Amino acid sequence: MDLLVRKIAEMVGGEVSGNSDQRINNVATLEKAGENDLSFYANKKYEALLYSTAAAVVLVPVDFKPHRPISSTLIFVKDPYSAFTLILGEFEKQLQQEVTGIEQPSFQSATAIIGTGCYLGAFSYVGNNTKIGDDVKIYPQTYIGHNVTIGKNTIVYAGVKIYDGCTIGSGCVIHSGAVVGSDGFGFAPQQDGSYKTIPQLGTVNIEDNVSIGANTVIDCATMLGDHTLLKKGVKIDNLVQIAHNVRIGNDTVIAAQTGIAGSTTLGARCMVGGQAGFEGHISIADETKVGAQTGVLRSTVTPGEKLMGSPALGLTEYYKAYSVFRKLPDLKKQIEQLEEKILNSR
Amino acid sequence: MDLLVRKIAEMVGGEVSGNSDQRINNVATLEKAGENDLSFYANKKYEALLYSTAAAVVLVPVDFKPHRPISSTLIFVKDPYSAFTLILGEFEKQLQQEVTGIEQPSFQSATAIIGTGCYLGAFSYVGNNTKIGDDVKIYPQTYIGHNVTIGKNTIVYAGVKIYDGCTIGSGCVIHSGAVVGSDGFGFAPQQDGSYKTIPQLGTVNIEDNVSIGANTVIDCATMLGDHTLLKKGVKIDNLVQIAHNVRIGNDTVIAAQTGIAGSTTLGARCMVGGQAGFEGHISIADETKVGAQTGVLRSTVTPGEKLMGSPALGLTEYYKAYSVFRKLPDLKKQIEQLEEKILNSR
Amino acid sequence: MDLLVRKIAEMVGGEVSGNSDQRINNVATLEKAGENDLSFYANKKYEALLYSTAAAVVLVPVDFKPHRPISSTLIFVKDPYSAFTLILGEFEKQLQQEVTGIEQPSFQSATAIIGTGCYLGAFSYVGNNTKIGDDVKIYPQTYIGHNVTIGKNTIVYAGVKIYDGCTIGSGCVIHSGAVVGSDGFGFAPQQDGSYKTIPQLGTVNIEDNVSIGANTVIDCATMLGDHTLLKKGVKIDNLVQIAHNVRIGNDTVIAAQTGIAGSTTLGARCMVGGQAGFEGHISIADETKVGAQTGVLRSTVTPGEKLMGSPALGLTEYYKAYSVFRKLPDLKKQIEQLEEKILNSR
Repeated sequence: MDLLVRKIAEMVGGEVSGNSDQRINNVATLEKAGENDLSFYANKKYEALLYSTAAAVVLVPVDFKPHRPISSTLIFVKDPYSAFTLILGEFEKQLQQEVTGIEQPSFQSATAIIGTGCYLGAFSYVGNNTKIGDDVKIYPQTYIGHNVTIGKNTIVYAGVKIYDGCTIGSGCVIHSGAVVGSDGFGFAPQQDGSYKTIPQLGTVNIEDNVSIGANTVIDCATMLGDHTLLKKGVKIDNLVQIAHNVRIGNDTVIAAQTGIAGSTTLGARCMVGGQAGFEGHISIADETKVGAQTGVLRSTVTPGEKLMGSPALGLTEYYKAYSVFRKLPDLKKQIEQLEEKILNSR
Repeated sequence: MDLLVRKIAEMVGGEVSGNSDQRINNVATLEKAGENDLSFYANKKYEALLYSTAAAVVLVPVDFKPHRPISSTLIFVKDPYSAFTLILGEFEKQLQQEVTGIEQPSFQSATAIIGTGCYLGAFSYVGNNTKIGDDVKIYPQTYIGHNVTIGKNTIVYAGVKIYDGCTIGSGCVIHSGAVVGSDGFGFAPQQDGSYKTIPQLGTVNIEDNVSIGANTVIDCATMLGDHTLLKKGVKIDNLVQIAHNVRIGNDTVIAAQTGIAGSTTLGARCMVGGQAGFEGHISIADETKVGAQTGVLRSTVTPGEKLMGSPALGLTEYYKAYSVFRKLPDLKKQIEQLEEKILNSR
Repeated sequence: MDLLVRKIAEMVGGEVSGNSDQRINNVATLEKAGENDLSFYANKKYEALLYSTAAAVVLVPVDFKPHRPISSTLIFVKDPYSAFTLILGEFEKQLQQEVTGIEQPSFQSATAIIGTGCYLGAFSYVGNNTKIGDDVKIYPQTYIGHNVTIGKNTIVYAGVKIYDGCTIGSGCVIHSGAVVGSDGFGFAPQQDGSYKTIPQLGTVNIEDNVSIGANTVIDCATMLGDHTLLKKGVKIDNLVQIAHNVRIGNDTVIAAQTGIAGSTTLGARCMVGGQAGFEGHISIADETKVGAQTGVLRSTVTPGEKLMGSPALGLTEYYKAYSVFRKLPDLKKQIEQLEEKILNSR
C-alpha cells in the first residue's frame, strides 16, 4: 500500500514543492512521522515541528511561507486538514477487507428484499418484509428485525440489533453492539405500588449520513406511527442513551455516555460533551454547546449558548461560581473575622 | 388493525357518549390525534386541548363535565390513563409479529428443557440443563448459558447474554444487548502492585415481572450459592450498571445510565433518575427518590427521602445551596465591600 | 464438590488447629457462613464475628491469638484473604463447565490459525489471518475480525466483538458485549455545518492479564500503525468508554461507566471510581486516585494525588469546599446580618 506524491497532489488539488516521484506508505502527525510518511500542518502553534519533522511529505496551507529550511517535500493546498482526511480515506479504502456476498450460515426471510453488492455476514438475521439497499454491509451476528428499511451504502457492524419497523438512511455507519428501536422506558403506576408497562408502538427513524457509536441505545417512540428521530448528519458516540420520542436536529454531535431523556428535542448543529444528561420534555436551541457531565434541566431558546454544571448554568457563570466554590473555606473564615471585628469595634 | 368504540368501552368498563359504532385505528396524544385516533384526558392542565382536539374518541374521567362543546366521542372511565394503556396493549398484540417455533440454525443442548409455545430465534444458544418455561420468546443471537432457568411468558430480545446458573422469573422483558451474570469487579491487590482476580462464583436472581433495558449489565454475586437480586416488578432502563451482590427491592424504578456499586441494597418502590451513582456497601430506604446525576455515598434510613447532588444532599437543601452557588461571585464582592466599610469606619 | 481441610492447608501453606479430616463444600463471609463453609478473617474490625461464626473452617493470620473460644477449625496462614481467593479459584475450576472443542455451526476463515485446547462456541466468527493461541475460550456469538491476534489462555465471553487488526494478550478476560476496536469519534467540520468522517485506521493493543467488563467499548487509534493501548494487568469494569489513542498504564483499575476521551494517557497503578470522566489530550500521573463522578480536565504530574469534583479538585479541597457549599444559605444570611449591623452601627 503506497501513494505517489504526484498522485496525492492531484487528489487534493495541490502544488508540490520537492520530489513528485516520492512514495509515501503511511500517515502520521508531524511529531511522529517518519521518512515514508505523509503529515499535515494546519495550526501555527505547531510551526516549530515543521522544521524538525522527519515526514517525507507535508500538506501545508497555500499562503504558508517557511522561515527556516524544511527537509520535507511540501504540498500546498487550501485546507491541509481536509486534504489529509481525504488521503486517510484513500488509505482506508486500500486497507479494508473487501467483504461482499452472503456468508453461510445466515438467515434472510423469504420476504426480505436485498440490494446488489451487499455483504451479509455469517449468523446475521434479516426479518420479514425488510428492505436492504445496494452496497450495504451487514457484519456477522447482526439482527435486522421485520419491516426494517436500510438505505444504500450503510455499514452495520457486528452484533448491531435493529428492532421491527425502524428506518435507517443511506451512508450511515452503526457500530457494534448498538441497539436501535428498543422499548421506551414507560410504566404506569398502579394503586398497589407496582407498575404496568406502557406498550411502545412507535419506531426509530435515522436519516442519511448518521453515525452511531458502539453499544449506544436508541429507544422507539411510544405512539403508533410516531418515531424517535435522528436527522441528517447526526454523529453519536459510544454508550449514549437516546430515550423514546427524542428528536435530534441535523449535524448535531454527541460525545460518549451522554443521556437524553424522553420527548426532548435537540436543535441542529449542537455539540454535546461526554456524560452530559438532558431532562425529558425539554427543547434545546440550535448550535447549543453543552459541557461534559452537564445536566440540562430546562429548555433554551437562544442559539449558540454554552452550558455547564449540574443543573446547567451558562459556561462563564458556572466557571466564575466554581472558582469561588473552591475558595469557600477561605470565604467562611473571612466572614468570621468580619463578625469578630464588628463585635470588637463596639 | 382497528377497534370499534363499543368494543373499547367494553374492554375498559366505560360509558360512551357519542357514536358507539365508530372505529379507531390508531392512538395519539390530544395534540397530535387525528380523525381516526383514540386519545385520553387525565390531567386538568390539558383541558383546553379537549375542546380543540381532532381525536375521534377520547377517554375521560367519570366525573368530568365539559365547559364547552366537544366534537369527539367520549368514553367515561375511572382512570383514563390506565384505560388508554390497556388499549395500547391491545394494539401491540395486533401489531406484533407472531413469532413461534424454533428457527434454524439454532443451538439447544440435549439436556436443555424447553416449554411449549416458545420462540427460539436463529443463532440463539441454550446451554446444558437450562430450563425455559412455556411461551417464552428468545430472539436471535441470544446466549442462554448452562443451568439457567427462565419463567414462562418472558421475552428475551436479540443478542441478550445470560451467564451460567442465573434465574429469570416469569413475565420479564430483557432488551437487546443486556448482560446478566457477568463477573463482579473484584481484584485482590498483590505486593508487586498488580491484582489477582477474585473468582466470582455466585449468580443473578431476577424475580417475576422485571424489565431490563438494552445494554444494561448485571454482575453475578461473589460467593457460591449467593446471588445479585432484582425483586418482583423492578424496572431497569438502558445502560445501567448493577454490580455484584446488589439487592433491589420490589417495584423500584431505575432510569438510564445509573450505576450501583457492589453489595449495595436499594429498598422497595424507590425511583432513581438517570446517571445517578451509588457507593458500594450502603443501604437505601424504601421509596427514596434520587435525582439525576446524584452521587449517593451514605446509607439512608427514612423512607421517601429525596436526594440530589454529588455527594447527595436532601433535594431542597441541594437546590437552596445551589441557588447561592450560582451567585457566589456576588457574595464574594459583598464580603469585600463589607471589609472595606469596616476598615473605613475605624 | 468439596475439599478436605488437610488439602486446603496444603494448598495455602497453612497450619491446621482442629479437625484436618473435615470437608467443606462452600465458601462464605464470617457472617453468612454455615457448618460446611470455609471463611476468612483478615481485618481486626471483624474479630467479634470470629467468636460467633458458624463457619466450619476459618483462615486466620499466623500471628492471631484468640481472646475467647472459637468453635471453628482454624488454618493459620500468612495472608488469609489471598489464601481465601486461592481456594475460591479451586472451587471455580471445579464449578466451570469444561467447555472445549468447536461447536457447530461456527465460522472459521480458512486462513485463521487456531491453537490446541481451544473452545469455539456456536455462531462464533473468526476472520481471515487471525491467530488464536492455545487454550483460548471463545464463547458463542463472538466476532473476532480479520488479522486479530489473541494470546493463550484468554477467555472471550459470549457476544464480544473484536474489530480487524486488534491484538489481545494472554491470560485476558473479556466479558459479554464488550467491543474492541470500533472507530474513534473523529469528524472534520465542513463549511456547510456538516461533518466529514475522519477515517480511523489504527487498532487496539491489549497486553497480558487485562480484564475488560461487559459492554465496555475501546475505540481504535486514528493513525495507521498506531494503537489504543491497555498495558499489562489493567482492569476495566463494565460500560466503560475508552476513546481513540488512549493509553493506560499497567495495573490501573477503572470502575464502571467511566469515560476517557481521546488521546489521554493514564499512568500505572491508578484507581478510578465509577462514572468519572477524563478530558481528551491530558496526561495523568501514576497512582492517581480519582473519585466517582469526578471530571478530570487537566493533566497531573504528582504521583498518588487524590482528585474529586467536576471539574476535579484535590479530594480534601473538594470536601472542605463542599462542606461549606451545603451551608451556603446560612453563610448568605450571616453576610446580610453583618451588613445590617454595620448599617446600624453608623
